[in-house]
Amino acid sequence: MTVHAEISIVPLGRHDTSMSKEVAAAFDAIHKIKNLKTKLTALGTQVEAKNLDSVLQAVEAAHEAAKSAGAKRVISTVRIDERLDKAQTLQDKVKSVKRKLKK
Amino acid sequence: MTVHAEISIVPLGRHDTSMSKEVAAAFDAIHKIKNLKTKLTALGTQVEAKNLDSVLQAVEAAHEAAKSAGAKRVISTVRIDERLDKAQTLQDKVKSVKRKLKK
Amino acid sequence: MTVHAEISIVPLGRHDTSMSKEVAAAFDAIHKIKNLKTKLTALGTQVEAKNLDSVLQAVEAAHEAAKSAGAKRVISTVRIDERLDKAQTLQDKVKSVKRKLKK
Amino acid sequence: MTVHAEISIVPLGRHDTSMSKEVAAAFDAIHKIKNLKTKLTALGTQVEAKNLDSVLQAVEAAHEAAKSAGAKRVISTVRIDERLDKAQTLQDKVKSVKRKLKK
Repeated sequence: MTVHAEISIVPLGRHDTSMSKEVAAAFDAIHKIKNLKTKLTALGTQVEAKNLDSVLQAVEAAHEAAKSAGAKRVISTVRIDERLDKAQTLQDKVKSVKRKLKK
Repeated sequence: MTVHAEISIVPLGRHDTSMSKEVAAAFDAIHKIKNLKTKLTALGTQVEAKNLDSVLQAVEAAHEAAKSAGAKRVISTVRIDERLDKAQTLQDKVKSVKRKLKK
Repeated sequence: MTVHAEISIVPLGRHDTSMSKEVAAAFDAIHKIKNLKTKLTALGTQVEAKNLDSVLQAVEAAHEAAKSAGAKRVISTVRIDERLDKAQTLQDKVKSVKRKLKK
Repeated sequence: MTVHAEISIVPLGRHDTSMSKEVAAAFDAIHKIKNLKTKLTALGTQVEAKNLDSVLQAVEAAHEAAKSAGAKRVISTVRIDERLDKAQTLQDKVKSVKRKLKK
């Protein structure tokens, strides 16, 4: 069993359009959670865990970090892929799609 | 402070394209969580809570219910809106947008 | 065949945390698109269409309206449910789940 | 101006829980669109474009490809980040967050 997720936060209440300070704080907080692999991407932080609970801890850590970095409203989109029938790493998933790409 | 969220689950491993059995099980489980208001919509279950923890409990309950209903893989999309500077109900939010709609 | 979708926009570049002005502008623009039924909810605008193209027009209209309302950056989350094997309204879907809810 | 997006599709109507065949078909179709940079990740295909229209073409291509690969229902989640005030590549965005990570 493996759980993959992507966590994307949008902090509101800043006067400008940048989000990198809050996104960095959120990634930092997620990265500190035990038993969780993390990968920073341009559209969110992707995580790999053994159970759903670790993923939900990461969502909470991301919100807390964004609020500590000054956000007065945090809007997040979380996509979770919980698979019971097969253990896969984030890389396994990319490889399994690449193998099927038309040569 | 109020936290609003929409939880949408997609169960995989069924031979057909229907999801209503698993979605009903997920809504039922979310609906049982204390201090959480729920609203069933065509694209997901919307919830209103006093804190983020209740929302994350709802996400876990939805996944557990879908798995108990037979799903071997559960893919969910969760949108969370955590607001520190104002307490609003789900209806308040709709009303505040309707007031601004061009007459 | 029916296509349902939920369109949620977050405008950035405002000094405060409110979004209702831009959300109202986006709903107004979506609402003007022919052959599209709309429903305003607390977490986004839900639409029902005969084809995917009308839904994508709605996404474009929402972004354009948010930018015209002053947003310098628009982050949106769009969930699309395109079903080939059955025509359903947004209400049909809610009813089919409610029928399966444990009495 | 740059538009980034992540497109994640879930095909329904298969007897098993795998999606890699349809995801590969969708990536292949997106990859063929002119003026669009693509990056396959474990949770979706990330794209970079000069305008929103190219991103919406990619969403359409992904749905068509999944249907051609046999899906009878396609549920997709699309996150779009349209920025007017700055041109950034997908890599620029990751680098700008990494620069702010606590050493």
